[in-house]
Amino acid sequence: MNKRVYNFYAGPATLPENVLKTAQTELLNYQNSGMSIMEMSHRSPSVEKVMSSAEQSIKELLNIPEGYRVLFLQGGASSQFFMVPYNFLPKNKVANYLVTGSFAEKAYQEGAQIGQAHVAATTKELKYTRVNTPDEISLSKDVAYVHLTSNNTIYGTQWDKFPEFDVPLIADMSSDILSRQFDASKFDLIYAGAQKNLGPAGVTIVVISNDLLEISAQQKTLPTMLNYTTHAQKDSLYNTPSVFPIYIVNLVLEWLKEQGGVVEVEKQNRHKAGIIYDIIDQSDGFYQGHAQRDRSIMNITFRLQNEDLEKKFVQETADKGLIGLKGHRSVGGIRASIYNAMPVSGCQALADFMINFMRNN
Amino acid sequence: MNKRVYNFYAGPATLPENVLKTAQTELLNYQNSGMSIMEMSHRSPSVEKVMSSAEQSIKELLNIPEGYRVLFLQGGASSQFFMVPYNFLPKNKVANYLVTGSFAEKAYQEGAQIGQAHVAATTKELKYTRVNTPDEISLSKDVAYVHLTSNNTIYGTQWDKFPEFDVPLIADMSSDILSRQFDASKFDLIYAGAQKNLGPAGVTIVVISNDLLEISAQQKTLPTMLNYTTHAQKDSLYNTPSVFPIYIVNLVLEWLKEQGGVVEVEKQNRHKAGIIYDIIDQSDGFYQGHAQRDRSIMNITFRLQNEDLEKKFVQETADKGLIGLKGHRSVGGIRASIYNAMPVSGCQALADFMINFMRNN
Repeated sequence: MNKRVYNFYAGPATLPENVLKTAQTELLNYQNSGMSIMEMSHRSPSVEKVMSSAEQSIKELLNIPEGYRVLFLQGGASSQFFMVPYNFLPKNKVANYLVTGSFAEKAYQEGAQIGQAHVAATTKELKYTRVNTPDEISLSKDVAYVHLTSNNTIYGTQWDKFPEFDVPLIADMSSDILSRQFDASKFDLIYAGAQKNLGPAGVTIVVISNDLLEISAQQKTLPTMLNYTTHAQKDSLYNTPSVFPIYIVNLVLEWLKEQGGVVEVEKQNRHKAGIIYDIIDQSDGFYQGHAQRDRSIMNITFRLQNEDLEKKFVQETADKGLIGLKGHRSVGGIRASIYNAMPVSGCQALADFMINFMRNN
Repeated sequence: MNKRVYNFYAGPATLPENVLKTAQTELLNYQNSGMSIMEMSHRSPSVEKVMSSAEQSIKELLNIPEGYRVLFLQGGASSQFFMVPYNFLPKNKVANYLVTGSFAEKAYQEGAQIGQAHVAATTKELKYTRVNTPDEISLSKDVAYVHLTSNNTIYGTQWDKFPEFDVPLIADMSSDILSRQFDASKFDLIYAGAQKNLGPAGVTIVVISNDLLEISAQQKTLPTMLNYTTHAQKDSLYNTPSVFPIYIVNLVLEWLKEQGGVVEVEKQNRHKAGIIYDIIDQSDGFYQGHAQRDRSIMNITFRLQNEDLEKKFVQETADKGLIGLKGHRSVGGIRASIYNAMPVSGCQALADFMINFMRNN
């Protein structure tokens, strides 16, 4: 295949073509330095500039108020699952989790191993076909924090309106960060593995309030690397950060600004998701959406009548250059991940295919 | 600067030019897939192939016997500093550390925070101008493991011959892995951040014995991500690994095999280091090596008569395209890091400059 395919992988995922072209052009000679950005010391002015530019862009694009830091860590969201309770769950308090999908459940399990954890709401018995309503949420006493997952990648559901609390709110936004507007000031900590909406795998973005940093500064027995304050105090340079992934993230953020920022990209995302959901809704049950409500604009999950037909769907789309549509093994069926970098034309191509496939089968 | 410079950074560091060219060529279209390797699911056959190829090459190049696994983790050597004691330091045992440099000391400090730790030998009072002799090493009772740092990047010293013990031996080989031959069967765990001799920052290689994996399998209260067994059981795919850095590592390993493997590269490295050490030794004290013995073939550290002259040296080398020669702030002076990917011509260029600089100053 010589031309660029439409890549519907759930993550790592498609990146803006122009970002890749820029990276390609300067791969051996970054800004006339005579070397690759990959070869540069993390303490060189060029790398520090990339990192501060990325921090600035994230603050700007997410509209983050004063009093927050942006950190570039490693280990993915999976490492945040235990770093959060290690830093913010004292023995006499309870971590509260809204369990609306597999990763939310993993976050809860890591919390429960470290301290007292409480499932404040879950849709597990509904097979995660929606997120919870506000009246379903029941917090424990002595809440340390509430943790939620903004978008459930595997199930294709999403918190449209975030619940509000008068305790610290922590969110895993790995699969929908920067895809839509929200009020960042309501959160104390937001984290996201880069490999869906931000860049390649290998870097995790953490947005953290100074209030929480004051708490982690009191943790005197944690390993140095597991304390958020370590990284905040050293501008994410306590150890060698994942330079090249951060560099790509910075290019993606620049690209996002060129698109008009989150306001414009959200419009595009809603339009893109609508193109595919419309086909599902008008298919008379040929395509059955997994989400019953709270549909994600990032991950669209649906089943066909049987697994043979689903296999055929995946095979035929792949033949047409529509790649990565097989659903997660725990849900089965089809999943179309349409992050920021998926062009409208990709969603249109998939919709066209879906119409034809329905006619022919 | 349009032509490629000679990059003496201590890490991230110079990479083989051909590796960068390959990465550049296929950056937008990996093996006719129509997408970048950065955009591919970590569970796609292409990425799994890259990872198993890298694992196989590391085993082959390091001549690792049966009974070991190779893992691709994140968080750098700094994360191994605490993962090692978390997994292998029970309450009734003592972690023993050979403290021969700054990173060795950091590893010890993390161990001491987690459990009982003992400095079995150190050259700190000698300002880390050499490593220890075997007779200086005094182990504690009830040793859990001995930890050493094979090459001290900041000070430019190196264990030429590794001490042997009848307890598990664990080594941080971040700055000299694959630069020289050694008997891997004497070690139970070897780890290395990639950004010096292996590839870009963002991935950590861990070589671990099945004996140690059996111990970590018994750890039932560790966070999932911090247990080595998690990653061994899932072939480093428990969470999303750092795909692009691993891809570059795999290309570097292929390049290393083309060079004739570790046997040939060690000859080159000794030759390269010799070119520069000869100038120091013949300079009548104009250049004063920091290492008094156990000189590293990877990092060559030396002082000049005063800081003004050192500044001038760094400035003039940079003007000539010899980059990154400023020593670490804790030692000062000059540091020339000449990892595997530094060509002989780079060392020759530096040596020529050093002769001229001595004549003119």
